[in-house]
Amino acid sequence: MITAALMSIGDELALGQIVDTNAAWLAEQLAARSIACVEHITVADERSRIAAAIERLCGDPNVGLLIITGGIGPTVDDLTRDALADAMGEPLVEDPAGIMHLEIWFAGRGSPMPERNRVQALRPESGRLLPNRVGTAPGLAAMHHDTTVFVLPGVPREMMTMFEEQVLPRLDVEEQQVIRTGIVRCFGLGESALAARLGDLMRRDRNPTVGTTASQAIISCRIRAVGDPKWCDRAIEEAAAEIEQRAGVYAFGRDDETLAGAVVRELVRRSETVAVAESCTGGLLGSMITEVAGSSAAFLGGWLTYTNEMKTREIGVPAGHFGSGAAGAVSVEVATDMAQGARRKAGADHALAITGIAGPDGGTEAKPVGTVFIALDSAGHDTQVRRFQFTGDRAGVRDRSAKAALAMLLWRLRGCEDLDMLWQKTNGESVSRPSS
Amino acid sequence: MITAALMSIGDELALGQIVDTNAAWLAEQLAARSIACVEHITVADERSRIAAAIERLCGDPNVGLLIITGGIGPTVDDLTRDALADAMGEPLVEDPAGIMHLEIWFAGRGSPMPERNRVQALRPESGRLLPNRVGTAPGLAAMHHDTTVFVLPGVPREMMTMFEEQVLPRLDVEEQQVIRTGIVRCFGLGESALAARLGDLMRRDRNPTVGTTASQAIISCRIRAVGDPKWCDRAIEEAAAEIEQRAGVYAFGRDDETLAGAVVRELVRRSETVAVAESCTGGLLGSMITEVAGSSAAFLGGWLTYTNEMKTREIGVPAGHFGSGAAGAVSVEVATDMAQGARRKAGADHALAITGIAGPDGGTEAKPVGTVFIALDSAGHDTQVRRFQFTGDRAGVRDRSAKAALAMLLWRLRGCEDLDMLWQKTNGESVSRPSS
Repeated sequence: MITAALMSIGDELALGQIVDTNAAWLAEQLAARSIACVEHITVADERSRIAAAIERLCGDPNVGLLIITGGIGPTVDDLTRDALADAMGEPLVEDPAGIMHLEIWFAGRGSPMPERNRVQALRPESGRLLPNRVGTAPGLAAMHHDTTVFVLPGVPREMMTMFEEQVLPRLDVEEQQVIRTGIVRCFGLGESALAARLGDLMRRDRNPTVGTTASQAIISCRIRAVGDPKWCDRAIEEAAAEIEQRAGVYAFGRDDETLAGAVVRELVRRSETVAVAESCTGGLLGSMITEVAGSSAAFLGGWLTYTNEMKTREIGVPAGHFGSGAAGAVSVEVATDMAQGARRKAGADHALAITGIAGPDGGTEAKPVGTVFIALDSAGHDTQVRRFQFTGDRAGVRDRSAKAALAMLLWRLRGCEDLDMLWQKTNGESVSRPSS
Repeated sequence: MITAALMSIGDELALGQIVDTNAAWLAEQLAARSIACVEHITVADERSRIAAAIERLCGDPNVGLLIITGGIGPTVDDLTRDALADAMGEPLVEDPAGIMHLEIWFAGRGSPMPERNRVQALRPESGRLLPNRVGTAPGLAAMHHDTTVFVLPGVPREMMTMFEEQVLPRLDVEEQQVIRTGIVRCFGLGESALAARLGDLMRRDRNPTVGTTASQAIISCRIRAVGDPKWCDRAIEEAAAEIEQRAGVYAFGRDDETLAGAVVRELVRRSETVAVAESCTGGLLGSMITEVAGSSAAFLGGWLTYTNEMKTREIGVPAGHFGSGAAGAVSVEVATDMAQGARRKAGADHALAITGIAGPDGGTEAKPVGTVFIALDSAGHDTQVRRFQFTGDRAGVRDRSAKAALAMLLWRLRGCEDLDMLWQKTNGESVSRPSS
């Protein structure tokens, strides 16, 4: 099986002025064709460093393919051609076909070729130029120490076109062995608690392997299988099913599924509807739901009751809750009344309500920043209210609040509503109250 | 001057499943402190490759500082600790203070430390743990072949906090010659139209330099000055003021300012309030506004009127608009009535309303996907309605819609409401109508 390394060239990348998206795109394209990337490297516009990196990677017996992007423009800081020739111990020679390509390119745009573009027709003596249909910079192909080297432009659109038109047809892709990947997404428990549930599935010596990564409280279990394509597909399906079995209702979907997507699909399947009432999230929950294409079949709408007056006037939360000595806006009572009021006024099957303190200000000793009450009211059920203590900044508290609300509804729809959720504060307030 | 290398660890990065944003962020932070990054490298979860990369970079006389991110979680695919110890030729030892940190972290969350988290207190014998205030994974600091090595968590939020709190104070930063950067953010015109306004400011041979990048319709003018710290600060201030002068009201703020942040600050300054009525954005506009800390001083709330019934029942849009042969839900009439209804019911100084077709379905020949009407109703003004034709997918149309609404309000608050906005369809419908 071929393994590859990727190299991105440019000061603007090394200095962090732009994020390198080429490497991730190439790695994914190669992975889809069974070529594993063992390393990406980003190097500044420094001829000797680029040459040293080429020499090291081509000398590495594990690297059969090296794809370099960037540094082949016409300016003095474009040094990839020179560095490649240095590493190969060869002179650069001018390629007549390359000169012709450049002259035609500029003629097509009604101008003569600027003299400085002439360097773009240079190639190491034993290498060859790769035609670029969408820009001036031809690519390069060469062989150094048994490693096949391709050099492509750094501009993503040109790089992608040339990879597909010039590189792919030249790769000797073995079709028997492929790498296939799959993802199971989980929410509502910690990464180590999930790892404990997955147990031996995460052993490094298995095929497929399973690894976890966490981002914005969503834990992704990444499955990676190597082998015959049909076997891989089956192995990934089996591993995904096993992960779902072990993760239980914490697993909400596969691949690119979102919590809101899972909720919307479940509601549509049952022909049920949902409405929302949001205070501290101010529209984030509604926004997550309506991000899902087709959500209009399940989402009726909602109220952003940011002030107490809006809570009372629009969805009937008794004003008495807000007086001194009363429960206050961030309370089990207000969350309950918001959910019940929203469901009644919208005529929905379910309503979710969120009220809390997102911070940075507004916290008290009894209700510190991150205190959030979330209520779920559904036809024929008691209203369920949970109290959470989220950590993190304002954006984090709001994000977790909206996701926890979606998980509460999803778990009810899947018949597991009594499960505990991470961040939940089980202090007697998180109880069900009869729907009015 | 110190030069640095960065290393990002993880299969998900090497395989291209996620894009590495940590390296660019770190490189920019270091550049701002005069530390140039000569190389980033991304390595898969493979102990021997990680160790070999550490050994190579620490042995490179040009690399005085190596920052590694990722691979220090509690699971078996977290191999950075082991690889670092391998490269250093030292055993891993358990750090008693590290165990205490983990026990306190979990105790604060009301649960005992899972046994598997114990590995997070391991460090190479001569190294030290760096406390992590925002997660379980302590960082590491070590010295290998005259290179200072820091290991930080891969989770961006944790990495950033630890860089600022643990790494920066340990760096021996030279103060004479610095790189300083500043940003002016613009919205509502195209990148090349903005470049034409900026003119000679964008010449590459200037100091400070000015470059533009566009992301999600926000164009950032990045200013970069090199020199004495005081001179840099003044030069950046002058360049920013000049950019704002040339960009006019299209420039809405500096550095990390958002459109919603600019709107909220302007409203608070005037002690004015805003309410929203959202259809196709389903809460995104409210979410953007309430993302701003302190927005409760200006934001009263809103209505997510996703269905026609909600538009009529909750904010008084006449049902006649929705009949056959009538204007329809996506029309200048409905946008106007939504904004006027929301402002009246909320008792706000301003109200923004959005109704449109976000796609992928629902488009017609007369109103294709991306057609959005946005209305702004303010006390003492005619209701302004603009018709837009946004391009892009559902997420793009929703994002541009919410931002265009914010820009309409910001421009009114700044007294430039008659300016044209990119994507606007000026076909006679985008006119002002008297507020009822």
